[in-house]
Amino acid sequence: MNLRLEKQMQFIIEIDKLKQIFRQSLISDGSRRENDAEHSWHTAIMCAVLEEYAPKGTDVLKSALLMLVHDLIEIYAGDTYLYDDASNATKPQREQDAAKKLFSILPEEQCEIFKNLWEEFEAKNTNEAKFAGIMDRVQPILLNYLTKGERWKAHKVTKNMVLKRLEKSLEFAHKDIYAYMLKIIEECVEKGYLPIEY
Amino acid sequence: MNLRLEKQMQFIIEIDKLKQIFRQSLISDGSRRENDAEHSWHTAIMCAVLEEYAPKGTDVLKSALLMLVHDLIEIYAGDTYLYDDASNATKPQREQDAAKKLFSILPEEQCEIFKNLWEEFEAKNTNEAKFAGIMDRVQPILLNYLTKGERWKAHKVTKNMVLKRLEKSLEFAHKDIYAYMLKIIEECVEKGYLPIEY
Repeated sequence: MNLRLEKQMQFIIEIDKLKQIFRQSLISDGSRRENDAEHSWHTAIMCAVLEEYAPKGTDVLKSALLMLVHDLIEIYAGDTYLYDDASNATKPQREQDAAKKLFSILPEEQCEIFKNLWEEFEAKNTNEAKFAGIMDRVQPILLNYLTKGERWKAHKVTKNMVLKRLEKSLEFAHKDIYAYMLKIIEECVEKGYLPIEY
Repeated sequence: MNLRLEKQMQFIIEIDKLKQIFRQSLISDGSRRENDAEHSWHTAIMCAVLEEYAPKGTDVLKSALLMLVHDLIEIYAGDTYLYDDASNATKPQREQDAAKKLFSILPEEQCEIFKNLWEEFEAKNTNEAKFAGIMDRVQPILLNYLTKGERWKAHKVTKNMVLKRLEKSLEFAHKDIYAYMLKIIEECVEKGYLPIEY
């Protein structure tokens, strides 16, 4: 028996748990919260759909791979809501511990490869990670727009809070993506989905 | 405003519906059925984890992209259970119609690109599609194994039915993957998850 393959299959089985890690976003019909596996799929395919907006030379399939991997550590560390400052303070250590635990199910050198993919996404130093980071920010705003800002309002998120995070994440975005997102946010404000204050 | 980007975003919004297309498989804890978005994510990341078992020269990130795209047409055509012969007879026409409807949300030349990706997966003529097809067959067997064959038994699926589909799909699989799956199936039979007859 191939022991290396046994470890790889064990990892494939373990990461099935990502389907039970729920995010704050609702899916587009508003019926329930989205889970991390769905979010990872959605943002990965977005890398291919929006390929032309990545900087020249960006390997968008590598960006898609980063999306497939980027939330795996939440199987142990849990989802940390973007606007929850207290949880965000403890996030780096929780996620480092989770990465160590999860990726070490894989054969040794492959553990490093997957941990590096996650760290590349987190560090946002490569074009591939920057483009992936844009998808990761755009997608929940689209879902909030489609579900009338219900989750924003539940967490008392204001227009300025969204804009502040958007500026940081979309610093490297194509101007058309940025303009589109600003338009969506304005529409959310106009329609009462995203309050200016509470 | 960038009308091309508007169409692309409309497509990204439309495909969110994949999260509400449910498959026969249960997720690994047995609590509920898996949806197509989760299945697409899981099989896409499997392409990267099991990369070394693809034929030399296979672009496994292309295989992952095929997985991200392969079930999109089910948004309109619905999921067709592998062991449902009646539904499988009408599947090609239903899926062709669905592909036309869905991908034409995209700008014209991108519609062709995505339709071609789906057709490449279906045709299984490239190494990338063959490797993707193996992931698509392996993953639900793993889930059936983890959930004690509940869905196999609900549909009166026998060992021979599973083996017959496995032979066809894993024709091009690495011998270690094939051996692993045969071992899993034997274990399912021994444990009473997969009956020889009903």
